[in-house]
Amino acid sequence: MRPRLSQPRRSTPSRVLPAGERALIAAIRQRVARPKGSLRIGIGDDAAVLRVPAADDLIVTTDFSLEQVHFRRDWHIPEVIGHRCLARGLSDVAAMGARPLAAFLSLSLPAELDTPGTGKSWPERSWIDRFFDGFLALADRYKVPLAGGDTAQSPEFDQRGRKHAGLIAADIVLLGSVRRGHALLRSRARAGDVIYVTGELGGASAELLAAGRDPDRFTAITRSQKNHPHLYPEPRIDVGLKLVSGKKAHAGIDLSDGLSTDLLHVCEESGLAAELDAAAIPIHPLAEQAERDGWVPSALGLALHGGEDYELLFTAPKWSRIPRKIAGVNIHPIGQMQTHRRRRADVVLRERDGHVSALDAGGWEHFS
Amino acid sequence: MRPRLSQPRRSTPSRVLPAGERALIAAIRQRVARPKGSLRIGIGDDAAVLRVPAADDLIVTTDFSLEQVHFRRDWHIPEVIGHRCLARGLSDVAAMGARPLAAFLSLSLPAELDTPGTGKSWPERSWIDRFFDGFLALADRYKVPLAGGDTAQSPEFDQRGRKHAGLIAADIVLLGSVRRGHALLRSRARAGDVIYVTGELGGASAELLAAGRDPDRFTAITRSQKNHPHLYPEPRIDVGLKLVSGKKAHAGIDLSDGLSTDLLHVCEESGLAAELDAAAIPIHPLAEQAERDGWVPSALGLALHGGEDYELLFTAPKWSRIPRKIAGVNIHPIGQMQTHRRRRADVVLRERDGHVSALDAGGWEHFS
Repeated sequence: MRPRLSQPRRSTPSRVLPAGERALIAAIRQRVARPKGSLRIGIGDDAAVLRVPAADDLIVTTDFSLEQVHFRRDWHIPEVIGHRCLARGLSDVAAMGARPLAAFLSLSLPAELDTPGTGKSWPERSWIDRFFDGFLALADRYKVPLAGGDTAQSPEFDQRGRKHAGLIAADIVLLGSVRRGHALLRSRARAGDVIYVTGELGGASAELLAAGRDPDRFTAITRSQKNHPHLYPEPRIDVGLKLVSGKKAHAGIDLSDGLSTDLLHVCEESGLAAELDAAAIPIHPLAEQAERDGWVPSALGLALHGGEDYELLFTAPKWSRIPRKIAGVNIHPIGQMQTHRRRRADVVLRERDGHVSALDAGGWEHFS
Repeated sequence: MRPRLSQPRRSTPSRVLPAGERALIAAIRQRVARPKGSLRIGIGDDAAVLRVPAADDLIVTTDFSLEQVHFRRDWHIPEVIGHRCLARGLSDVAAMGARPLAAFLSLSLPAELDTPGTGKSWPERSWIDRFFDGFLALADRYKVPLAGGDTAQSPEFDQRGRKHAGLIAADIVLLGSVRRGHALLRSRARAGDVIYVTGELGGASAELLAAGRDPDRFTAITRSQKNHPHLYPEPRIDVGLKLVSGKKAHAGIDLSDGLSTDLLHVCEESGLAAELDAAAIPIHPLAEQAERDGWVPSALGLALHGGEDYELLFTAPKWSRIPRKIAGVNIHPIGQMQTHRRRRADVVLRERDGHVSALDAGGWEHFS
């Protein structure tokens, strides 16, 4: 009786999806612990109910994970897609120096979720189960409950009625809390601040390059969770918490778009310029391997522009005693915030030979 | 240099989209007021920062608006899509009896946003501008700031590399606050409670039927914002606030899936059954018109199963003095919550002739 928007379906019914949306929600709800702590009411009502600690600010971030844009089903196993989806949100929480409170997931799924191109279902278990294996393993590690969200069936016809395979779309929402007024902001860098990054850079894009160059090897290595900066990025929650509790940092951002782009964000929001020291930028071994293999002209390029490393960049005054490791993660000073100079770019790179040149924001940008 | 996931683009560059994602975000940011009140930091950082009133619980809800699933670009003008996107979230806030605090929007847009099928751009202004006209007009009315979100370019190839037109996907996140412990929950109905609904039902689905039956007339009426339950649903925020402040209601839900389905949600979460009085169900004039026009066998069917009316259903004890109007909106008693009886359905309908029959949940369900 209800009028429907979509064209009639010509596809065969799903093998892996539960019979209905309510069944899907019930299946998710079953895997999620009962609300406790700051989460009062979770999945099952019109909205979730949370109690934010009274002395804290609430921080909120949302991030899309779209098939064919942020992941490919023939490259990324479901566990990886689930992990990365949540890690994107957690990394933003980390960049604010906040503690994660709760996650919300809006998930749109096609009617058919078999292995694309093969016509076969995933052999072991359904795609959804494995997606939540990856998602909830990371959620458990950071004690962040899945508190709600939305589900829908992905469209399979475009406006001209042309049929195409439905694509997965996920939007992750993360809530976090941080002591009032203490969130690490992009806008709080000061001239003279030293610029630091966590970990090593360029590894995520080097690993993704491998997927295009050697898909079989890439598929094989997705089974291990060790040292896969692209497949299993580690949100730097503990580093962010230490930076805030020690009151050491002025400004912070996570490296999602790439160092050159994200540092430009800090410059713009703080009204400053920045100079990077090329020799000081920590390069991930996978990026160095990509240079040795001749896949890229320079590993430094991947570290500067590669993106999706999900490491943190922060600035702190020179007199701050920033240790070499925070929460077990290497911390590297890589440059300095400066006041603007006429006819000089916002971000410049000082090369090993002392030559200084403008560093264009070369990170990933949609709509570019 | 950065490896890219998507297939090379063969489409022509966009006419209406700004040059890049940063330009798009800047354009949105320009239309949004500077943070004030409980919103401390809005668009422009890794996350937004909010201060939730100390005596309040926080409520959070997310809702997808997907092209070809929830709207069609040849039926719905951009202002309508923007309005409905936000109204979905606000209606959930209303159902909890909460006051909206902030909205977050994740928005995925195709490279081309011209009028589908015509090859022409929208004549007046760009699709995005008009979407935000609708979105922000409703946001202003309820004083809810757009505090952040995400943007992406919609995929245009499926897994087999088949090109299709990119589709719009929006995910709206609403935060609200309500006095601690006072949120209206689906699970708090009690046996003997009277069931009430706001407004009249079946109008939204009747109006959507008109789009399929008489697209030209439908297009013409989209220009007016008066009495369009499908195009411009009104979230019942003020009713929800009054119900909570007066402590009159036990349980609440918004009618998004349809009365029969949403009442079943209340029954399931409260562990109860319900009986509806057919003669008492308020039927929207557009639903009655649809019956007279022979589009549907009965207007009551639309009111029971039509969905997307975004009215509120709530339960209250018999001795509560529920007025006939709350915040200017008609309130109708339509039935009663009951304890379960063996061999009787969760929700039953008492017809005008006294006959009682099981009422199947016939509302909209994805994956059905």
